[in-house]
Amino acid sequence: MARAFTIVMAGGSGTRFWPLSRADRPKQLLPLAGGEESLLASTVRRATRVTAPEDVLVVTSERLAAATRAALPSLPAQNILAEPVGRNTAPCIGWASSRVARIDPDAVCAVLPADHHIADEDGYAEVLARALDAAAQGDIVTVGIRPSRPETGYGYVEMGEAIGEGVHRARRFVEKPNRQRAEQFLAAGTFLWNSGMFFFRAGTMLDAIRTHLPGLGQTLDRLLAAAPEDEAEMVREVYPGLPDVSIDHGVMEKVSDVAVVPADFGWSDLGSFASAWELAARDSDDNSLPLSALTIDASGCFVRAPAGKVVALVGVTDLVVVDTEDAILVLPRDRAQDVKKVVAALQRRGDEELL
Amino acid sequence: MARAFTIVMAGGSGTRFWPLSRADRPKQLLPLAGGEESLLASTVRRATRVTAPEDVLVVTSERLAAATRAALPSLPAQNILAEPVGRNTAPCIGWASSRVARIDPDAVCAVLPADHHIADEDGYAEVLARALDAAAQGDIVTVGIRPSRPETGYGYVEMGEAIGEGVHRARRFVEKPNRQRAEQFLAAGTFLWNSGMFFFRAGTMLDAIRTHLPGLGQTLDRLLAAAPEDEAEMVREVYPGLPDVSIDHGVMEKVSDVAVVPADFGWSDLGSFASAWELAARDSDDNSLPLSALTIDASGCFVRAPAGKVVALVGVTDLVVVDTEDAILVLPRDRAQDVKKVVAALQRRGDEELL
Repeated sequence: MARAFTIVMAGGSGTRFWPLSRADRPKQLLPLAGGEESLLASTVRRATRVTAPEDVLVVTSERLAAATRAALPSLPAQNILAEPVGRNTAPCIGWASSRVARIDPDAVCAVLPADHHIADEDGYAEVLARALDAAAQGDIVTVGIRPSRPETGYGYVEMGEAIGEGVHRARRFVEKPNRQRAEQFLAAGTFLWNSGMFFFRAGTMLDAIRTHLPGLGQTLDRLLAAAPEDEAEMVREVYPGLPDVSIDHGVMEKVSDVAVVPADFGWSDLGSFASAWELAARDSDDNSLPLSALTIDASGCFVRAPAGKVVALVGVTDLVVVDTEDAILVLPRDRAQDVKKVVAALQRRGDEELL
Repeated sequence: MARAFTIVMAGGSGTRFWPLSRADRPKQLLPLAGGEESLLASTVRRATRVTAPEDVLVVTSERLAAATRAALPSLPAQNILAEPVGRNTAPCIGWASSRVARIDPDAVCAVLPADHHIADEDGYAEVLARALDAAAQGDIVTVGIRPSRPETGYGYVEMGEAIGEGVHRARRFVEKPNRQRAEQFLAAGTFLWNSGMFFFRAGTMLDAIRTHLPGLGQTLDRLLAAAPEDEAEMVREVYPGLPDVSIDHGVMEKVSDVAVVPADFGWSDLGSFASAWELAARDSDDNSLPLSALTIDASGCFVRAPAGKVVALVGVTDLVVVDTEDAILVLPRDRAQDVKKVVAALQRRGDEELL
């Protein structure tokens, strides 16, 4: 089999886990699935089941580069690619693919978001291996998660005919549906959640970008032609001019030879404190608590606080209470999405040091 | 008029304001009525409207003596009387009365709890003056608060005939009633809440103690006979042997010449975070918040946090959220009384440093 690389997309600066997550400490750097391991470190650890550590590339922002390197001490420093500005996933994947192509144009790549949770890691490793195999045949491959509910928050991919063991032709990508369509998708059984994972030969992706995003393609060709020691400076120079476009819109929806591997390995995109609560270890009252918490008639709560700080809950249900050194959040679990309203309000009132 | 002393009872170590209140920082040392002034400092400030500052005595525990002196820098240090062990209100008032009698046996005394809130301070000063005048005639006088609701948490005093302008004979003291009796008391119009404030000539109180609590009386006579420089050592020696009895049970219910001054000066005993919320300044959503708080769809909440700490509340109603350096409390306002359950649980699990 061809040499396999992993490209971890770790540039996110999500606001849905404030006050735990901050601009300098975004979701992927937090141990949101429990334990001590950050989501990013978990992603890299899982990736090393199909990729050598020296073949794991992590794309992040310049702002997060130092923290990202610190979170991944086992990776070579040059494997952390720092984008000078954020330009969505197409430039990110393009740059990383050019880095891989420079080493081995026939290598296959697994592109993985840094901030997802996987319950069944063995099943996951099998799916990665299968998707990389399919990518080695020349297709661009995605992993589609078998839906467990009529979710309206995700994009979908429709499965076509089987083209191999556990590999299907992808018929089309569909944007986030309304409730009615989501229910139809669930009933049909052929629609999968778009996981944001992509697999391809480096040369295949670069060709697809040259065809469908020619401006980006030309810039990547200049990067490929440059001496390795000039790459960082050139990236700083060209990145601001790159198009802000996602790999889905810019490439996946336009290429014809897309395959999809349907999967069911306990995937969660950990989109809010509510999903963190769902994944977390919980006591007999369904509370997810730090050791120092104390509850009386409290249930269904999600509590986080600095080590040793006592959080006492009395007579409350389904509440999120998150304490940090400089801020506390209290809201009902079913309003966990409204954390972003808090962040927006802090931005409006100019509380920059809290963001 | 006779020289007037104030005796502030400040030995309390209440647990109903945890985590703000601690064994070393009890309720009376906190600014629970808003602003910066502790309840104790407010009590002393109000007392100086009828008493010179050098004639304000404050009885507290040895543990709290230093913090109490620090909270009252305008009082002479020797005016802080430190009880080596707590022995309820009769020994406390007895000791302070002996101190006053040593200076001037004809002086009148106002005994005031340290941790109440008074909304109408002018009305309060008038009542104190009236009660001190009545006490100068030789009665033991109490202040009775006109009830505004059928409260079952307080003792009552029944008013008899008027014996002067705004002064009545006290017919009897009644323990905390059940709901039905409390409603009868409210309807009758002659029952007042026992405020725990007492007024008397020092010699009158000492005589009453000699009659009704002769053991305590003998000890107080030994204290009176001792040289002033020996008082502290003698107190430390005799206090552990004193009876643990309240002034109500030990004296007030037994003496015949008790007068009561009915009053209505916006009194609150600040018994819980719920009463603190009632007294506090609130925004248009009925939230009592620190400046740094941020609310979205939140109402009726009581929030306290260290300066600068941001407390963000989303979609919660009638909640108490109190943050301190080492502990947070979250509970519904109508369960504010259950704070003591939290304190009991911390005691059980041995978290002494949090108490």
